[in-house]
Amino acid sequence: MSNPKTYSIVTLGSHSALQILKGAKDEGFKTIAVVKKGFEEPYSSFKVADEIISIDEYPDFSKLEQQLIDKNAILIPHGTLFAACSVDQLKDNKMLYFGDKEVLAWEESRIKQRQWLLGSGLTMPKIYANPEDIDEPAIIKFNGAGGGKGYFLAKNKVEFEEKIALHKDTTYIIQQYIIGNPIYIHYFYSPLNDELEIMSMDKRYETNVDSIGRISASDQLDLNLQTSYNIIGNIPIVARESMLAEFFKMGRAVVDKSKELTSKGMFGPFCLEMVITPDMEYFVFEISARIVAGSNPYIDGSPYTALRYPEPMSTGRRIAREIKNAIEQNKLDKVLG
Amino acid sequence: MSNPKTYSIVTLGSHSALQILKGAKDEGFKTIAVVKKGFEEPYSSFKVADEIISIDEYPDFSKLEQQLIDKNAILIPHGTLFAACSVDQLKDNKMLYFGDKEVLAWEESRIKQRQWLLGSGLTMPKIYANPEDIDEPAIIKFNGAGGGKGYFLAKNKVEFEEKIALHKDTTYIIQQYIIGNPIYIHYFYSPLNDELEIMSMDKRYETNVDSIGRISASDQLDLNLQTSYNIIGNIPIVARESMLAEFFKMGRAVVDKSKELTSKGMFGPFCLEMVITPDMEYFVFEISARIVAGSNPYIDGSPYTALRYPEPMSTGRRIAREIKNAIEQNKLDKVLG
Amino acid sequence: MSNPKTYSIVTLGSHSALQILKGAKDEGFKTIAVVKKGFEEPYSSFKVADEIISIDEYPDFSKLEQQLIDKNAILIPHGTLFAACSVDQLKDNKMLYFGDKEVLAWEESRIKQRQWLLGSGLTMPKIYANPEDIDEPAIIKFNGAGGGKGYFLAKNKVEFEEKIALHKDTTYIIQQYIIGNPIYIHYFYSPLNDELEIMSMDKRYETNVDSIGRISASDQLDLNLQTSYNIIGNIPIVARESMLAEFFKMGRAVVDKSKELTSKGMFGPFCLEMVITPDMEYFVFEISARIVAGSNPYIDGSPYTALRYPEPMSTGRRIAREIKNAIEQNKLDKVLG
Repeated sequence: MSNPKTYSIVTLGSHSALQILKGAKDEGFKTIAVVKKGFEEPYSSFKVADEIISIDEYPDFSKLEQQLIDKNAILIPHGTLFAACSVDQLKDNKMLYFGDKEVLAWEESRIKQRQWLLGSGLTMPKIYANPEDIDEPAIIKFNGAGGGKGYFLAKNKVEFEEKIALHKDTTYIIQQYIIGNPIYIHYFYSPLNDELEIMSMDKRYETNVDSIGRISASDQLDLNLQTSYNIIGNIPIVARESMLAEFFKMGRAVVDKSKELTSKGMFGPFCLEMVITPDMEYFVFEISARIVAGSNPYIDGSPYTALRYPEPMSTGRRIAREIKNAIEQNKLDKVLG
Repeated sequence: MSNPKTYSIVTLGSHSALQILKGAKDEGFKTIAVVKKGFEEPYSSFKVADEIISIDEYPDFSKLEQQLIDKNAILIPHGTLFAACSVDQLKDNKMLYFGDKEVLAWEESRIKQRQWLLGSGLTMPKIYANPEDIDEPAIIKFNGAGGGKGYFLAKNKVEFEEKIALHKDTTYIIQQYIIGNPIYIHYFYSPLNDELEIMSMDKRYETNVDSIGRISASDQLDLNLQTSYNIIGNIPIVARESMLAEFFKMGRAVVDKSKELTSKGMFGPFCLEMVITPDMEYFVFEISARIVAGSNPYIDGSPYTALRYPEPMSTGRRIAREIKNAIEQNKLDKVLG
Repeated sequence: MSNPKTYSIVTLGSHSALQILKGAKDEGFKTIAVVKKGFEEPYSSFKVADEIISIDEYPDFSKLEQQLIDKNAILIPHGTLFAACSVDQLKDNKMLYFGDKEVLAWEESRIKQRQWLLGSGLTMPKIYANPEDIDEPAIIKFNGAGGGKGYFLAKNKVEFEEKIALHKDTTYIIQQYIIGNPIYIHYFYSPLNDELEIMSMDKRYETNVDSIGRISASDQLDLNLQTSYNIIGNIPIVARESMLAEFFKMGRAVVDKSKELTSKGMFGPFCLEMVITPDMEYFVFEISARIVAGSNPYIDGSPYTALRYPEPMSTGRRIAREIKNAIEQNKLDKVLG
């Protein structure tokens, strides 16, 4: 079984599946897209999937378990998979799975994630346990999927209560709002050679916060404008080169810490989501222990991967390359969760 | 005449000519840039034109008609051509012309364009027939070229009348202002194989609305800042992958509808210009039935074309590829208007 | 000595060193990164340096002078080098140096730079000699490094004095604040063939001015938000194609003028930093007579270099190509300062 051609790569048709499947094809794998009915066209038009399996709803994915096991398929997880299946469901799934399943619990729980990141020596925004504690601008974030829709700012308890009254969702966190620029750093950590790579960076394109700046302050006030943070895209970006060394250290710190938390430690792609202030402080507000959609501008490689790889290397292709390397070195278990 | 080398590709030296000419060269055509005097340097420096013909003013382009016919030149239209020549002039021109000339009338008239898009099932911003009807934020857009310069917002009739008094131009429309993020989707529809492709996406860089957000609200108010929407560039962007299926449906809908409106229907490159709200509603405010300058960031291919094509595929090159395919299949009439 | 392989390319590990070193390797040179201790990882991880020399602080670079001369190393200057060493130090350094050393004095002094740019026929923002003269919005810029941190706006003398009181730094200029979009044009001028190339363009990503637009005007006012202009990254952009001819003329004008100012004139990469208003006026506020970090998004080539070069051509690689051409033509002295 040391021939990549005897395996398939499978993922849900959404999120970052185009680069995952294209990358897998480029590395010699067969590819399968499991797609919600009505969402097939991108995967056929862009010719990335050798096979497209349509399902009615994402939870039906688990019904394909035996069929995909029979195809020797390796599942590549991404955000849509986690939105569709619970961590428990994923743990029970018997398919070959790329990534560390144990780390999912550390990513999913905001409390455990915070413990992980602070334990890695990173700086994070404060969390206010109670609305009364708000003494600086705060952002209120709701749990679960939804792309940041409905997140709101509040400067104090009064404003918090005014605004929360408009929401049905009652599971949220109150986080210090850091004034500075968001940037998302995409990493890849290889458990085969213990190397950490910076793959690319992006900034999100969120409706409506990334367009309200086009409305003059005067008009905004007249409109009584409300902000929202729903992701609809990503914009490529590169960081000031002198910051890269610190980004490497931060990435290495979370990888090292994860090895204390789970038996294998986190590996494969991950992302640190941060805000950088004018004082050049890096506030990390989240880690994604998996491929992020912010790598989608780099399907044909990024300025950073162009340095290291002669061929266009997306994060999706990097995953497939890692699996191929593992197969050829008879170490597939090192990259399966 | 089934040899592409016996044809030339010609376009006006402006707008998206660099990628059109480069793409044509890459597909084996001779290339001609017709350039307004003083604007030659980009086309010589970037080495995209086998021949540069200088003219004093764009309307002089029609004087070249016979000369270009003798060279067996195929004209690729773009925004500058439409700004320079009327639809009637273009219809009378006897040169080989890539694209559906009949669709130009449907693009040029805001009323007919609206009929086309609404008839395709797309959602559009409301149009207010009279200033009195303004009951939500509205944007006032002037007809003709100019890159959105002078467009202004008004919340009601009083504000409308205050601001319109400052303008000489009296042909305008009053359009509902949708608060959300602009995004421009670039398509290509092939009449040879009936395939619809998503080529790329962009967001515009408009002065001054895309820089006023860098001025604090307090300073903006003191400055009594006025907004303007003059395009000076384009920024690459990718969309959230789960939205692509809907974008394909929208593109297909306008292609299908166009076949009811004209004998051939629209083909080649086109663009849907939309605003996406926090509720994930897609408001289409315009269609361009031709190559758009928003594809210029992708002269060397886009993340999307990298999925489908092994070589760097710009929209300009895709046009040349289509013409080459048509020539080789003896179906050139299918891509000429 | 007409063999590029007998030379090394050396630069400080920061700013734009990744593309400089990668480009040099691609053109067949050996590469040396001189890196401040703790900042080595990017240069090892991205595999761009054949040799990494660690120093404690940047001023220690001069201690390497003889060692680098012995290696036949050509130094490529960039912003970090100028922040680390004075112009006088650089002039005294005996290493092979790419670029015109005489032009540094014209770049360093704001007064001389202004003389150069105005003498080239470019339009610049007004400079107010005294705070009393401020009669339009002005931006106060501090001299020296720091990436624009602390720059502030003032509309009149009163506001100026309020805000300057918060700053210790007392060397500043008061510049007219032009409301419009910033854009940075990256050029390359070859003294070997007298050709001027447009390599790429970018817009900066500055904290916090490029994120405050995400905060509603109402919230900004409540927060009493202060702006700052600290560069943390760069975003790729392309310009409206009809503006390119003018950009070529502007680039040519500063090159021509520089030949009156110094014996060789400026050559190699340079950047015009401008703001474009809604009236399509180009206000140039600075020239960088060297490679700028804004070219970092284009390590694998830009939309513009893809037109002219079959291989991915970064500005860094273009420098190495120029040196290689000079060596092979026995004209190395033409590109050394």
